[in-house]
Amino acid sequence: MSDADIRRVARSLLVEQGPDAITLRAIARELGITAPALYRYYESRDQLVAEVRTDVCNDLAQALSAACDGLPDDAGIRFFAICRGFRQWALDHAREFTLVFASPSAAVLGSAMQQFGEPVGRLFLEAAGRLLTDYAVVTPPMEFIPPELRDDLIAFQTELLRVLSDSGQKFPAEKLDLGVSYVMIQFWARLYGHVTLEVFGNYPIPITNPDVLFDATLADIGRSIGLAG
Amino acid sequence: MSDADIRRVARSLLVEQGPDAITLRAIARELGITAPALYRYYESRDQLVAEVRTDVCNDLAQALSAACDGLPDDAGIRFFAICRGFRQWALDHAREFTLVFASPSAAVLGSAMQQFGEPVGRLFLEAAGRLLTDYAVVTPPMEFIPPELRDDLIAFQTELLRVLSDSGQKFPAEKLDLGVSYVMIQFWARLYGHVTLEVFGNYPIPITNPDVLFDATLADIGRSIGLAG
Repeated sequence: MSDADIRRVARSLLVEQGPDAITLRAIARELGITAPALYRYYESRDQLVAEVRTDVCNDLAQALSAACDGLPDDAGIRFFAICRGFRQWALDHAREFTLVFASPSAAVLGSAMQQFGEPVGRLFLEAAGRLLTDYAVVTPPMEFIPPELRDDLIAFQTELLRVLSDSGQKFPAEKLDLGVSYVMIQFWARLYGHVTLEVFGNYPIPITNPDVLFDATLADIGRSIGLAG
Repeated sequence: MSDADIRRVARSLLVEQGPDAITLRAIARELGITAPALYRYYESRDQLVAEVRTDVCNDLAQALSAACDGLPDDAGIRFFAICRGFRQWALDHAREFTLVFASPSAAVLGSAMQQFGEPVGRLFLEAAGRLLTDYAVVTPPMEFIPPELRDDLIAFQTELLRVLSDSGQKFPAEKLDLGVSYVMIQFWARLYGHVTLEVFGNYPIPITNPDVLFDATLADIGRSIGLAG
């Protein structure tokens, strides 16, 4: 037995029954060993869940890359393809999505989007960086951005520049003002919000064609940052 | 013992451990009875969870009403107070929020927002109705609303008019076009999205002052429908 076996069992418990089903007891039962024996491999349930989460994030990153396969080399097309890929992955993997993005463990382990070293955060940031470089993104007037958010936005800006420079992307730093950081947070909130709403069935009305609604939402968000629908 | 006792135990399991902790076995243990004895009160776990959910929704509705207590009789002020109340309730009651708005059972039992007879949906719709009556809400040009969504939006419009008429609200029906239905769905997606993001800690950066970010978001959404920030 290896820790890969344990992670595989944990993953199938997750997929079949949801995040709370990942317990050391259930895994031990599945593998025919005692729960204490598991502690040779993992210090705690939290550590195991953190690793499952990393596996899930790697899969998601692969799905997001695949969503761009064969697309023209256009920053706008690729950015929106990643957004669509994120939604499709979430709908197809509701329980993995719940573990990483919508469960208390997400809060405990830290936001998947906050760990820019993680492939998912990096993919989004790199795609956003290219979009900013190649397109004229419109940001809100400074008076709409509360001064209390300045320090957080500056920290985000710094982090973003670091990721882009690590990835070897040529990025015109003068394009990255506080408005851009603010818009990126709002963009993520709307994308995440729409996807979560859909995964958990919280539309205010039954939607016959949710693909169309999602595309309309992306177009709305695009227009709000000055990109033609 | 009564079904109120059972619901109370179920609620405390929810609050202490989350939605998945509501099992007939755990409740029976807590009450010192056998699980089969519970079936005299509830046909199934699903039925019990549905009732807990109703209790939670009633509490939320009360919190939303309370959020308006003592406020001036202005539709805009009250509508945004309800939005703030929703966020605050969600942050203070993360597990109840998860049960109703962010768990597979939410999807199975139907959207809390879709059951307009339920107090939460009704409160939001009535507040939105007053906002539409008293303010000049700006809706997107028709060409931004995909024709595939028309039928769903018309159904929403019909439902909304019914709720408003049931509540005795005088509502100018000519103000309720498809654009309004569309804007209401987008508004809900953004509000829900932001709140869920915050409850589950999915900001892309650590936010020092999340109250300020939420208010800025509400102001953004307000401006996007033509209300002054």
